[in-house]
Amino acid sequence: MKVARYSHDGQVSFGIVDENYLIQLKGHPLVNQYETTGERVLLSQVKLLAPTLPSKVVCVGKNYGAHITELGLAASAEPTLFFKPNSAIIGHGDAIVLPPQSSQVEVEVELAVVIGQLTKNVGVENALSAVWGYTVANDVTARDLQFTDDQWARSKAFDTFCPLGPWIETDWVPASQRIWSEISGGVAQDATVDQMIHGVAQIVSYVSQNMTLLPGDVILTGTPAGITKFDSGQTVSCGIDGVGVLSNPVVA
Amino acid sequence: MKVARYSHDGQVSFGIVDENYLIQLKGHPLVNQYETTGERVLLSQVKLLAPTLPSKVVCVGKNYGAHITELGLAASAEPTLFFKPNSAIIGHGDAIVLPPQSSQVEVEVELAVVIGQLTKNVGVENALSAVWGYTVANDVTARDLQFTDDQWARSKAFDTFCPLGPWIETDWVPASQRIWSEISGGVAQDATVDQMIHGVAQIVSYVSQNMTLLPGDVILTGTPAGITKFDSGQTVSCGIDGVGVLSNPVVA
Repeated sequence: MKVARYSHDGQVSFGIVDENYLIQLKGHPLVNQYETTGERVLLSQVKLLAPTLPSKVVCVGKNYGAHITELGLAASAEPTLFFKPNSAIIGHGDAIVLPPQSSQVEVEVELAVVIGQLTKNVGVENALSAVWGYTVANDVTARDLQFTDDQWARSKAFDTFCPLGPWIETDWVPASQRIWSEISGGVAQDATVDQMIHGVAQIVSYVSQNMTLLPGDVILTGTPAGITKFDSGQTVSCGIDGVGVLSNPVVA
Repeated sequence: MKVARYSHDGQVSFGIVDENYLIQLKGHPLVNQYETTGERVLLSQVKLLAPTLPSKVVCVGKNYGAHITELGLAASAEPTLFFKPNSAIIGHGDAIVLPPQSSQVEVEVELAVVIGQLTKNVGVENALSAVWGYTVANDVTARDLQFTDDQWARSKAFDTFCPLGPWIETDWVPASQRIWSEISGGVAQDATVDQMIHGVAQIVSYVSQNMTLLPGDVILTGTPAGITKFDSGQTVSCGIDGVGVLSNPVVA
Protein backbone atom coordinates (compact mmCIF):
# COMPACT_ATOMS: atom_id res chain seq x y z
CA MET A 1 0.00 0.00 0.00
CA LYS A 2 1.24 3.46 -0.89
CA VAL A 3 0.37 6.15 1.68
CA ALA A 4 0.73 9.73 0.48
CA ARG A 5 0.33 13.05 2.23
CA TYR A 6 -1.03 15.81 0.07
CA SER A 7 -2.62 19.19 -0.20
CA HIS A 8 -5.84 19.65 -2.16
CA ASP A 9 -8.27 22.57 -2.11
CA GLY A 10 -6.39 24.06 0.82
CA GLN A 11 -6.69 20.93 2.95
CA VAL A 12 -3.83 18.62 3.97
CA SER A 13 -4.67 14.92 4.11
CA PHE A 14 -3.17 11.48 4.02
CA GLY A 15 -4.42 9.18 1.26
CA ILE A 16 -3.93 5.72 -0.18
CA VAL A 17 -2.70 5.62 -3.77
CA ASP A 18 -5.16 3.66 -5.95
CA GLU A 19 -3.71 3.79 -9.48
CA ASN A 20 -4.39 7.36 -10.64
CA TYR A 21 -6.44 8.27 -7.58
CA LEU A 22 -5.93 9.01 -3.91
CA ILE A 23 -8.41 7.59 -1.40
CA GLN A 24 -8.61 10.19 1.34
CA LEU A 25 -7.96 9.05 4.92
CA LYS A 26 -9.38 10.48 8.14
CA GLY A 27 -6.62 12.20 10.09
CA HIS A 28 -3.39 10.26 10.54
CA PRO A 29 -3.40 6.66 9.30
CA LEU A 30 -1.40 5.45 12.32
CA VAL A 31 -4.04 6.96 14.64
CA ASN A 32 -7.18 6.10 12.72
CA GLN A 33 -6.17 2.73 11.25
CA TYR A 34 -6.55 3.86 7.64
CA GLU A 35 -10.20 4.83 8.06
CA THR A 36 -11.31 6.52 4.82
CA THR A 37 -13.53 9.55 4.32
CA GLY A 38 -15.14 8.19 1.15
CA GLU A 39 -13.53 10.98 -0.91
CA ARG A 40 -11.32 10.25 -3.91
CA VAL A 41 -9.20 12.71 -5.83
CA LEU A 42 -7.10 12.40 -8.96
CA LEU A 43 -3.41 12.08 -8.07
CA SER A 44 -2.66 14.56 -10.85
CA GLN A 45 -4.77 17.21 -9.12
CA VAL A 46 -3.04 17.23 -5.73
CA LYS A 47 0.21 18.65 -4.44
CA LEU A 48 2.17 15.80 -2.86
CA LEU A 49 3.84 16.70 0.44
CA ALA A 50 6.59 14.94 2.35
CA PRO A 51 4.76 11.77 3.43
CA THR A 52 5.67 11.97 7.10
CA LEU A 53 6.20 14.64 9.77
CA PRO A 54 9.13 13.19 11.68
CA SER A 55 10.31 14.35 15.08
CA LYS A 56 13.81 13.63 13.76
CA VAL A 57 15.68 12.44 10.70
CA VAL A 58 18.53 10.10 11.61
CA CYS A 59 21.07 9.38 8.88
CA VAL A 60 23.53 6.56 8.37
CA GLY A 61 26.72 7.48 6.54
CA LYS A 62 29.20 5.27 4.69
CA ASN A 63 26.84 2.35 4.17
CA TYR A 64 27.76 1.35 0.59
CA GLY A 65 31.34 0.23 -0.03
CA ALA A 66 31.76 1.90 -3.42
CA HIS A 67 30.56 5.23 -1.99
CA ILE A 68 33.08 5.03 0.85
CA THR A 69 35.75 4.48 -1.80
CA GLU A 70 34.63 7.39 -4.00
CA LEU A 71 34.76 9.73 -0.97
CA GLY A 72 38.18 8.44 0.04
CA LEU A 73 36.90 7.53 3.49
CA ALA A 74 37.50 4.55 5.73
CA ALA A 75 34.75 2.07 6.54
CA SER A 76 33.64 1.85 10.18
CA ALA A 77 32.58 -1.31 11.97
CA GLU A 78 29.42 0.27 13.35
CA PRO A 79 26.93 2.49 11.50
CA THR A 80 28.00 6.15 11.38
CA LEU A 81 25.09 8.32 12.52
CA PHE A 82 24.30 11.98 11.93
CA PHE A 83 21.17 14.12 11.75
CA LYS A 84 19.34 16.32 9.29
CA PRO A 85 17.00 18.99 10.75
CA ASN A 86 13.28 18.87 9.95
CA SER A 87 13.55 22.36 8.49
CA ALA A 88 15.29 20.76 5.49
CA ILE A 89 12.35 18.53 4.56
CA ILE A 90 10.47 19.07 1.28
CA GLY A 91 8.21 16.81 -0.77
CA HIS A 92 8.11 15.45 -4.30
CA GLY A 93 8.10 18.27 -6.84
CA ASP A 94 9.32 20.96 -4.44
CA ALA A 95 12.39 22.91 -5.50
CA ILE A 96 15.84 22.25 -4.05
CA VAL A 97 17.32 25.70 -3.44
CA LEU A 98 21.08 26.02 -3.93
CA PRO A 99 22.63 28.04 -1.09
CA PRO A 100 25.17 30.73 -1.92
CA GLN A 101 27.67 29.18 0.53
CA SER A 102 28.28 26.18 -1.73
CA SER A 103 29.41 25.65 -5.30
CA GLN A 104 29.11 21.87 -5.20
CA VAL A 105 25.69 20.55 -4.21
CA GLU A 106 25.26 16.85 -4.92
CA VAL A 107 22.58 14.17 -5.03
CA GLU A 108 22.52 11.25 -2.57
CA VAL A 109 19.61 8.87 -3.15
CA GLU A 110 18.77 6.87 -0.02
CA LEU A 111 16.27 4.29 1.13
CA ALA A 112 14.30 6.04 3.90
CA VAL A 113 12.82 3.92 6.68
CA VAL A 114 9.68 5.40 8.26
CA ILE A 115 9.09 4.25 11.83
CA GLY A 116 5.59 3.12 12.78
CA GLN A 117 5.69 2.81 16.56
CA LEU A 118 7.51 4.02 19.64
CA THR A 119 10.73 2.04 19.51
CA LYS A 120 13.56 1.71 22.02
CA ASN A 121 16.17 -1.03 22.33
CA VAL A 122 14.58 -3.27 19.71
CA GLY A 123 16.59 -6.35 18.77
CA VAL A 124 17.62 -7.00 15.16
CA GLU A 125 15.19 -9.91 14.97
CA ASN A 126 12.18 -7.69 15.78
CA ALA A 127 13.38 -4.45 14.22
CA LEU A 128 11.38 -4.68 10.99
CA SER A 129 8.15 -4.76 13.01
CA ALA A 130 8.93 -1.17 14.04
CA VAL A 131 8.93 -0.06 10.39
CA TRP A 132 5.78 1.57 9.02
CA GLY A 133 7.10 1.59 5.47
CA TYR A 134 9.68 3.00 3.11
CA THR A 135 10.05 6.12 1.06
CA VAL A 136 12.78 7.65 -1.10
CA ALA A 137 15.08 10.36 0.24
CA ASN A 138 17.65 12.64 -1.29
CA ASP A 139 20.32 13.42 1.31
CA VAL A 140 21.29 16.59 -0.56
CA THR A 141 24.84 17.54 0.41
CA ALA A 142 27.01 20.60 -0.13
CA ARG A 143 30.09 18.48 -0.78
CA ASP A 144 32.55 21.35 -0.56
CA LEU A 145 31.27 22.22 2.93
CA GLN A 146 31.10 18.58 4.05
CA PHE A 147 34.87 18.36 4.08
CA THR A 148 35.74 21.85 5.25
CA ASP A 149 33.42 21.48 8.26
CA ASP A 150 34.39 19.06 11.00
CA GLN A 151 30.92 17.61 11.21
CA TRP A 152 28.40 16.37 8.63
CA ALA A 153 25.77 18.81 9.77
CA ARG A 154 25.79 22.20 8.05
CA SER A 155 26.55 20.72 4.62
CA LYS A 156 23.41 18.58 4.83
CA ALA A 157 21.13 20.92 6.80
CA PHE A 158 20.24 23.73 4.41
CA ASP A 159 16.53 24.31 3.85
CA THR A 160 15.23 22.01 1.06
CA PHE A 161 18.15 19.57 1.50
CA CYS A 162 15.92 16.68 2.60
CA PRO A 163 13.44 15.77 -0.15
CA LEU A 164 11.23 12.84 0.96
CA GLY A 165 8.61 11.01 -1.10
CA PRO A 166 6.67 10.55 -3.19
CA TRP A 167 4.81 8.35 -0.64
CA ILE A 168 5.34 5.61 1.94
CA GLU A 169 5.22 2.06 0.59
CA THR A 170 4.09 -0.16 3.46
CA ASP A 171 4.28 -3.57 1.71
CA TRP A 172 7.83 -3.36 0.36
CA VAL A 173 10.58 -5.55 1.81
CA PRO A 174 14.24 -4.71 1.20
CA ALA A 175 15.93 -7.29 -1.02
CA SER A 176 18.01 -6.55 -4.14
CA GLN A 177 15.90 -3.76 -5.62
CA ARG A 178 17.55 -1.09 -7.77
CA ILE A 179 18.31 2.28 -6.16
CA TRP A 180 19.26 5.05 -8.55
CA SER A 181 19.43 8.77 -9.18
CA GLU A 182 19.39 10.86 -12.34
CA ILE A 183 20.18 14.48 -13.03
CA SER A 184 17.99 15.77 -15.85
CA GLY A 185 17.81 12.26 -17.25
CA GLY A 186 21.51 11.41 -17.00
CA VAL A 187 22.28 8.50 -14.70
CA ALA A 188 24.16 9.50 -11.55
CA GLN A 189 23.80 6.64 -9.05
CA ASP A 190 22.82 3.07 -9.94
CA ALA A 191 23.07 0.31 -7.37
CA THR A 192 20.97 -2.20 -5.44
CA VAL A 193 19.86 -1.96 -1.83
CA ASP A 194 21.46 -5.31 -0.96
CA GLN A 195 24.82 -3.51 -1.34
CA MET A 196 24.16 -1.80 2.00
CA ILE A 197 26.83 -2.76 4.55
CA HIS A 198 24.39 -2.50 7.47
CA GLY A 199 20.89 -3.71 6.58
CA VAL A 200 17.61 -2.11 7.59
CA ALA A 201 16.95 -4.35 10.60
CA GLN A 202 20.48 -3.85 11.90
CA ILE A 203 20.21 -0.08 11.48
CA VAL A 204 16.82 0.27 13.16
CA SER A 205 18.03 -1.85 16.07
CA TYR A 206 21.29 0.11 16.34
CA VAL A 207 19.61 3.51 16.30
CA SER A 208 17.01 2.35 18.83
CA GLN A 209 19.80 1.35 21.25
CA ASN A 210 20.90 4.97 21.05
CA MET A 211 17.65 6.94 21.09
CA THR A 212 13.90 6.51 21.28
CA LEU A 213 12.29 6.48 17.83
CA LEU A 214 8.83 7.97 17.49
CA PRO A 215 6.11 7.08 14.98
CA GLY A 216 6.83 8.98 11.78
CA ASP A 217 10.56 9.31 12.45
CA VAL A 218 12.81 8.74 9.47
CA ILE A 219 16.10 6.88 9.15
CA LEU A 220 18.12 7.40 5.97
CA THR A 221 20.19 4.31 5.26
CA GLY A 222 23.11 5.72 3.28
CA THR A 223 23.82 6.43 -0.36
CA PRO A 224 25.50 4.31 -3.05
CA ALA A 225 28.36 5.44 -5.31
CA GLY A 226 27.82 7.92 -8.13
CA ILE A 227 27.19 11.11 -6.17
CA THR A 228 27.03 13.91 -8.73
CA LYS A 229 26.82 17.69 -8.65
CA PHE A 230 23.68 19.35 -9.96
CA ASP A 231 22.91 22.91 -10.96
CA SER A 232 20.09 25.38 -11.13
CA GLY A 233 17.64 24.56 -13.89
CA GLN A 234 18.17 20.81 -13.66
CA THR A 235 15.84 18.21 -12.20
CA VAL A 236 17.05 15.59 -9.73
CA SER A 237 15.23 12.26 -9.65
CA CYS A 238 15.80 9.53 -7.08
CA GLY A 239 14.18 6.13 -7.35
CA ILE A 240 13.92 2.79 -5.63
CA ASP A 241 12.20 -0.02 -7.52
CA GLY A 242 8.91 -0.87 -5.85
CA VAL A 243 8.91 2.24 -3.67
CA GLY A 244 8.69 5.16 -6.06
CA VAL A 245 10.42 8.04 -7.79
CA LEU A 246 11.13 11.35 -6.05
CA SER A 247 11.80 14.27 -8.41
CA ASN A 248 12.77 17.82 -7.53
CA PRO A 249 13.67 20.79 -9.70
CA VAL A 250 16.72 22.83 -8.70
CA VAL A 251 16.76 26.61 -8.34
CA ALA A 252 19.39 29.06 -7.17
CA MET B 1 11.54 37.61 33.41
CA LYS B 2 11.87 33.89 34.03
CA VAL B 3 9.47 31.71 32.00
CA ALA B 4 9.10 28.15 33.21
CA ARG B 5 7.20 25.19 31.83
CA TYR B 6 5.83 22.86 34.46
CA SER B 7 3.45 20.11 35.39
CA HIS B 8 1.05 20.54 38.29
CA ASP B 9 -2.04 18.50 39.18
CA GLY B 10 -1.71 16.67 35.86
CA GLN B 11 -1.72 19.86 33.80
CA VAL B 12 1.21 21.23 31.81
CA SER B 13 1.53 25.04 31.77
CA PHE B 14 3.94 27.84 31.19
CA GLY B 15 4.39 30.25 34.08
CA ILE B 16 6.32 33.34 35.13
CA VAL B 17 8.60 32.89 38.12
CA ASP B 18 7.68 35.38 40.88
CA GLU B 19 10.06 34.64 43.74
CA ASN B 20 8.75 31.39 45.25
CA TYR B 21 5.66 31.29 43.05
CA LEU B 22 4.73 30.62 39.45
CA ILE B 23 2.13 32.85 37.80
CA GLN B 24 0.29 30.57 35.41
CA LEU B 25 0.09 31.65 31.74
CA LYS B 26 -2.64 30.87 29.21
CA GLY B 27 -1.29 28.51 26.57
CA HIS B 28 2.05 29.39 25.03
CA PRO B 29 3.52 32.76 26.01
CA LEU B 30 4.72 33.46 22.45
CA VAL B 31 1.17 32.95 21.18
CA ASN B 32 -0.80 34.62 23.96
CA GLN B 33 1.60 37.45 24.85
CA TYR B 34 2.05 36.29 28.44
CA GLU B 35 -1.66 36.50 29.27
CA THR B 36 -2.14 35.07 32.77
CA THR B 37 -4.86 32.80 34.10
CA GLY B 38 -4.91 34.42 37.54
CA GLU B 39 -3.67 31.20 39.13
CA ARG B 40 -0.49 31.06 41.23
CA VAL B 41 1.27 27.99 42.50
CA LEU B 42 4.26 27.48 44.76
CA LEU B 43 7.38 26.73 42.74
CA SER B 44 8.20 24.01 45.26
CA GLN B 45 4.95 22.21 44.43
CA VAL B 46 5.42 21.83 40.67
CA LYS B 47 7.53 19.56 38.47
CA LEU B 48 9.63 21.78 36.22
CA LEU B 49 9.81 20.58 32.61
CA ALA B 50 12.21 21.51 29.84
CA PRO B 51 11.19 25.14 29.25
CA THR B 52 10.77 24.86 25.47
CA LEU B 53 9.60 22.29 22.94
CA PRO B 54 12.07 22.90 20.11
CA SER B 55 11.69 21.60 16.56
CA LYS B 56 15.47 21.18 16.67
CA VAL B 57 18.50 21.59 18.92
CA VAL B 58 21.47 23.01 17.02
CA CYS B 59 24.84 22.79 18.76
CA VAL B 60 28.07 24.71 18.32
CA GLY B 61 31.23 22.79 19.07
CA LYS B 62 34.72 24.03 19.90
CA ASN B 63 33.64 27.50 21.00
CA TYR B 64 35.90 28.00 24.05
CA GLY B 65 39.65 27.96 23.45
CA ALA B 66 40.61 26.08 26.62
CA HIS B 67 38.07 23.34 25.81
CA ILE B 68 39.50 22.90 22.30
CA THR B 69 42.90 22.50 23.93
CA GLU B 70 41.73 19.96 26.51
CA LEU B 71 40.19 17.82 23.73
CA GLY B 72 43.33 18.09 21.61
CA LEU B 73 41.34 19.50 18.70
CA ALA B 74 42.07 22.28 16.23
CA ALA B 75 40.07 25.50 16.23
CA SER B 76 37.98 26.24 13.14
CA ALA B 77 37.41 29.66 11.61
CA GLU B 78 33.65 29.18 11.40
CA PRO B 79 31.36 27.72 14.06
CA THR B 80 31.25 23.91 14.01
CA LEU B 81 27.62 22.77 13.98
CA PHE B 82 26.00 19.50 14.97
CA PHE B 83 22.60 18.39 16.25
CA LYS B 84 21.08 16.71 19.27
CA PRO B 85 17.71 14.94 18.77
CA ASN B 86 14.65 16.12 20.68
CA SER B 87 14.30 12.65 22.18
CA ALA B 88 17.30 13.52 24.37
CA ILE B 89 15.62 16.47 26.10
CA ILE B 90 14.81 16.36 29.81
CA GLY B 91 14.11 19.08 32.37
CA HIS B 92 15.55 20.23 35.67
CA GLY B 93 15.50 17.41 38.21
CA ASP B 94 15.04 14.61 35.69
CA ALA B 95 17.55 11.78 35.81
CA ILE B 96 20.38 11.44 33.31
CA VAL B 97 20.49 7.74 32.43
CA LEU B 98 23.94 6.29 31.71
CA PRO B 99 23.82 4.04 28.64
CA PRO B 100 25.57 0.65 28.74
CA GLN B 101 27.49 1.52 25.53
CA SER B 102 29.66 4.09 27.35
CA SER B 103 31.97 4.06 30.34
CA GLN B 104 32.81 7.77 30.15
CA VAL B 105 29.80 10.09 30.24
CA GLU B 106 30.75 13.72 30.86
CA VAL B 107 29.17 17.07 31.69
CA GLU B 108 29.22 19.99 29.23
CA VAL B 109 27.51 23.11 30.59
CA GLU B 110 26.36 25.42 27.79
CA LEU B 111 24.52 28.68 27.37
CA ALA B 112 21.34 27.76 25.47
CA VAL B 113 19.76 30.34 23.20
CA VAL B 114 16.00 29.97 22.78
CA ILE B 115 14.68 31.41 19.52
CA GLY B 116 11.56 33.60 19.67
CA GLN B 117 10.54 34.06 16.07
CA LEU B 118 10.83 32.51 12.62
CA THR B 119 14.38 33.42 11.62
CA LYS B 120 16.21 33.00 8.33
CA ASN B 121 19.29 34.86 7.06
CA VAL B 122 19.36 37.34 9.94
CA GLY B 123 22.39 39.61 10.05
CA VAL B 124 24.65 39.73 13.10
CA GLU B 125 23.40 43.24 13.91
CA ASN B 126 19.78 42.07 14.21
CA ALA B 127 20.38 38.54 15.46
CA LEU B 128 19.68 39.19 19.15
CA SER B 129 16.16 40.35 18.26
CA ALA B 130 15.46 36.75 17.20
CA VAL B 131 16.28 35.51 20.72
CA TRP B 132 13.39 34.82 23.10
CA GLY B 133 15.70 34.24 26.04
CA TYR B 134 18.35 32.00 27.54
CA THR B 135 18.39 28.80 29.51
CA VAL B 136 21.08 26.42 30.75
CA ALA B 137 21.91 23.22 28.89
CA ASN B 138 24.03 20.21 29.65
CA ASP B 139 25.35 18.78 26.37
CA VAL B 140 25.88 15.38 27.99
CA THR B 141 28.48 13.45 25.99
CA ALA B 142 29.69 9.86 25.96
CA ARG B 143 33.30 10.92 25.49
CA ASP B 144 34.58 7.46 24.63
CA LEU B 145 32.06 7.19 21.78
CA GLN B 146 32.64 10.76 20.59
CA PHE B 147 36.09 9.85 19.38
CA THR B 148 35.46 6.32 18.16
CA ASP B 149 32.52 7.52 16.03
CA ASP B 150 33.26 9.67 12.98
CA GLN B 151 30.49 12.11 13.82
CA TRP B 152 29.41 13.90 16.99
CA ALA B 153 25.95 12.44 16.89
CA ARG B 154 25.50 9.11 18.68
CA SER B 155 27.73 10.12 21.61
CA LYS B 156 25.48 13.11 22.30
CA ALA B 157 22.10 11.67 21.29
CA PHE B 158 21.22 9.15 23.98
CA ASP B 159 17.88 9.66 25.71
CA THR B 160 18.29 12.10 28.65
CA PHE B 161 21.51 13.58 27.18
CA CYS B 162 20.01 17.07 26.71
CA PRO B 163 18.92 18.54 30.06
CA LEU B 164 17.47 22.05 29.57
CA GLY B 165 16.33 24.46 32.26
CA PRO B 166 15.37 25.38 34.85
CA TRP B 167 13.57 28.16 32.89
CA ILE B 168 14.03 30.74 30.14
CA GLU B 169 15.42 34.09 31.29
CA THR B 170 14.17 36.70 28.81
CA ASP B 171 15.91 39.80 30.23
CA TRP B 172 19.46 38.46 30.40
CA VAL B 173 22.14 39.80 28.03
CA PRO B 174 25.38 37.87 27.49
CA ALA B 175 28.37 39.71 28.94
CA SER B 176 31.01 38.22 31.25
CA GLN B 177 28.75 36.12 33.48
CA ARG B 178 30.12 32.97 35.10
CA ILE B 179 29.28 29.62 33.51
CA TRP B 180 30.07 26.56 35.59
CA SER B 181 29.30 22.94 36.35
CA GLU B 182 29.65 20.80 39.44
CA ILE B 183 29.48 17.08 40.02
CA SER B 184 28.02 16.35 43.46
CA GLY B 185 29.36 19.69 44.67
CA GLY B 186 32.87 19.40 43.22
CA VAL B 187 33.69 22.05 40.64
CA ALA B 188 34.10 20.69 37.11
CA GLN B 189 33.84 23.66 34.73
CA ASP B 190 34.30 27.31 35.69
CA ALA B 191 34.53 30.01 33.03
CA THR B 192 32.77 33.13 31.75
CA VAL B 193 30.57 33.41 28.71
CA ASP B 194 32.74 36.14 27.20
CA GLN B 195 35.34 33.42 26.58
CA MET B 196 33.17 32.15 23.72
CA ILE B 197 35.05 32.40 20.40
CA HIS B 198 31.85 33.04 18.43
CA GLY B 199 29.36 35.20 20.33
CA VAL B 200 25.60 34.70 20.51
CA ALA B 201 24.72 37.19 17.77
CA GLN B 202 27.32 35.73 15.44
CA ILE B 203 26.09 32.19 16.10
CA VAL B 204 22.39 32.96 15.61
CA SER B 205 23.21 34.75 12.37
CA TYR B 206 25.46 31.95 11.16
CA VAL B 207 22.94 29.19 11.90
CA SER B 208 20.14 31.20 10.27
CA GLN B 209 22.19 31.44 7.04
CA ASN B 210 22.15 27.65 7.07
CA MET B 211 18.63 26.75 8.17
CA THR B 212 15.32 28.29 9.16
CA LEU B 213 14.98 28.65 12.93
CA LEU B 214 11.52 28.24 14.44
CA PRO B 215 10.14 29.79 17.63
CA GLY B 216 11.23 27.59 20.53
CA ASP B 217 14.28 26.20 18.72
CA VAL B 218 17.42 25.92 20.81
CA ILE B 219 21.03 26.68 19.98
CA LEU B 220 23.71 25.41 22.36
CA THR B 221 26.72 27.68 22.21
CA GLY B 222 29.56 25.38 23.22
CA THR B 223 31.14 24.29 26.47
CA PRO B 224 34.14 25.68 28.39
CA ALA B 225 37.09 23.63 29.66
CA GLY B 226 36.75 21.28 32.61
CA ILE B 227 34.61 18.53 31.13
CA THR B 228 34.44 15.79 33.74
CA LYS B 229 33.10 12.25 33.92
CA PHE B 230 30.19 11.55 36.24
CA ASP B 231 28.75 8.35 37.61
CA SER B 232 25.54 6.81 38.81
CA GLY B 233 24.44 8.19 42.17
CA GLN B 234 25.98 11.62 41.59
CA THR B 235 24.18 14.88 40.82
CA VAL B 236 25.28 17.13 37.97
CA SER B 237 24.61 20.85 38.30
CA CYS B 238 25.13 23.40 35.55
CA GLY B 239 24.79 27.13 36.15
CA ILE B 240 25.01 30.48 34.43
CA ASP B 241 24.90 33.57 36.61
CA GLY B 242 21.67 35.45 36.06
CA VAL B 243 20.05 32.61 34.14
CA GLY B 244 19.72 29.76 36.62
CA VAL B 245 20.98 26.42 37.86
CA LEU B 246 20.06 23.14 36.17
CA SER B 247 20.54 20.03 38.31
CA ASN B 248 20.05 16.41 37.35
CA PRO B 249 20.67 13.20 39.29
CA VAL B 250 22.48 10.39 37.48
CA VAL B 251 21.27 6.80 37.30
CA ALA B 252 22.53 3.72 35.46
